[in-house]
Amino acid sequence: MATDHAKQILEGSPRSVARLITWLEDEDRRAYKCMEKLYPHTGKAYIIGITGSPGAGKSTLTDKLVRAIRKQGHTVGIIAVDPSSPFTGGAILGDRVRMSELNEDPEVYIRSMATRGFLGGMAKATSDVVKVFDAFGKDIVIIETVGVGQDEVDIIGIADTTCLVLVPGLGDGIQSMKAGVMEIADVFVINKADRPGADQLWAEVTYRVEQDTHIKQQRDWTPMVTKTVAVDDEGIDGLWEAIQRHRQYLEESGKLTEKRRIRTSQETLRMIHNELFRLVREQLESSGQLDRYVQQILDHRRDPYSVMREIVNNWLSIPKEQKEAS
Amino acid sequence: MATDHAKQILEGSPRSVARLITWLEDEDRRAYKCMEKLYPHTGKAYIIGITGSPGAGKSTLTDKLVRAIRKQGHTVGIIAVDPSSPFTGGAILGDRVRMSELNEDPEVYIRSMATRGFLGGMAKATSDVVKVFDAFGKDIVIIETVGVGQDEVDIIGIADTTCLVLVPGLGDGIQSMKAGVMEIADVFVINKADRPGADQLWAEVTYRVEQDTHIKQQRDWTPMVTKTVAVDDEGIDGLWEAIQRHRQYLEESGKLTEKRRIRTSQETLRMIHNELFRLVREQLESSGQLDRYVQQILDHRRDPYSVMREIVNNWLSIPKEQKEAS
Repeated sequence: MATDHAKQILEGSPRSVARLITWLEDEDRRAYKCMEKLYPHTGKAYIIGITGSPGAGKSTLTDKLVRAIRKQGHTVGIIAVDPSSPFTGGAILGDRVRMSELNEDPEVYIRSMATRGFLGGMAKATSDVVKVFDAFGKDIVIIETVGVGQDEVDIIGIADTTCLVLVPGLGDGIQSMKAGVMEIADVFVINKADRPGADQLWAEVTYRVEQDTHIKQQRDWTPMVTKTVAVDDEGIDGLWEAIQRHRQYLEESGKLTEKRRIRTSQETLRMIHNELFRLVREQLESSGQLDRYVQQILDHRRDPYSVMREIVNNWLSIPKEQKEAS
Repeated sequence: MATDHAKQILEGSPRSVARLITWLEDEDRRAYKCMEKLYPHTGKAYIIGITGSPGAGKSTLTDKLVRAIRKQGHTVGIIAVDPSSPFTGGAILGDRVRMSELNEDPEVYIRSMATRGFLGGMAKATSDVVKVFDAFGKDIVIIETVGVGQDEVDIIGIADTTCLVLVPGLGDGIQSMKAGVMEIADVFVINKADRPGADQLWAEVTYRVEQDTHIKQQRDWTPMVTKTVAVDDEGIDGLWEAIQRHRQYLEESGKLTEKRRIRTSQETLRMIHNELFRLVREQLESSGQLDRYVQQILDHRRDPYSVMREIVNNWLSIPKEQKEAS
């Protein structure tokens, strides 16, 4: 059954893609079998991250960028990661509505994902969906996310090229937030560049990119700074050009291989960890053990630290001998 | 050694508090022993969360609120969680500088924490520091954090009373982000209430609070909406009054007990989660196994899903019999 879905995805069924992603989001075990089958068919897609604060116009920019990419004949998968309410689980609807025009293009696949739950699951879910799109044959995968918070930094770490969207006039506090995210940008986009203050922002960013010793020390690539007015479709070709130049740099310098090695390492760790925790949690909750421990802790008969050690010591046994000898 | 620190913390040594928090941040194993000793002395502090977007004036508000609380003789611990760069680990300095005047009061303990690392570690670190302050004898613990991202939602979930700080004129995109955070606020603070648009924002929030069926269905408490001009020390008593009324509601309705039960459950799970990750990562990295697996995956000789299953099957053994019979 799960294997059938993998086959159908490789044969181009969008319905099977949707089903698999739902399984991944629900942590349905059937997803694993399917992902195993798909894995050998991954590694071809190029991954672009688009990040920036709310109101920066990321959705419109993504929309126009995708149209430009489509004109060159490439197929595209889009993952829109939305911050959501911990209560409603709802996502902000604006993005979906605006992007829905692209839905009519069969070579573009769009998936919105609500940030849900607990404990950094979003980065794992996003990297799984990237692999699904990759196996599904999409040449380019775009991840659009809000650029604040550790979760988002983890998500954007999946991308080969990260674009940070800034706009003039969003106030000092907001721009200073960006200080934390500046270092992860390969391409800066000054969007809404027809607004007052755009030239100044462009100058500031350019200055920082060229002066910032942190950015310099980290890498040979000097981030490019582009200007767009996404709503009027201006500057989009320049942005696409900048992304392609960064890609060329990564490929020619060998950094793409290095980047993907690190990513595979992190993803593998993350998968092992998530699966271990899922199993432990399931057992603790279904057996009523967790409730009993919590009652003991609340009664001050135990403390959570010793509970943690007891469970980890009793349940996890790391083999002394390594079977692996590759 | 670690036990000595616990004793010194209980006897009131700020130096030992600083040492322990550093251990916690570094995931130094000595922290656990210490936390075990402190745990029986926790559960007395009341925890206030202050959240809102950058530029909302949270730091100034916290500063003035703490002064008001101190006038009534209560002792205070402050945890300032700053978004930071994944590369530099640096925090935004403004907050620390502004709050430093409070540093002269020996009954106020301030700790800035940079959001670092991987996999939701901040919420765990923050809840540990809350416990340290609690055992250290602080009556009130204030957590100040930026109100966006899943990480921050997790952090603010630690608080008994959550205050969401809004300001007039921060633009639509930013206010709409708040949609996700609106539901977690027990008290709304319209700060910079002398600015144009403050009355309208107050009316909007009040309307939403009273109309929002989600908020209504979730709980009996109707969030209070207060106005402040923190920089001029206006409205602070009203805010403190609102917080105390929420506390009274929680205590009288039994919701505080319920809230803390859920929190203990989540914290225990989170501790297990973090410890599992630490052990797995340590073993896989130090043995060179991870590198070997990654090479096999990159060569497409294996896939990460089967690697995950192999490790989980070999390492995890959940006892069939439950020893626990409380």
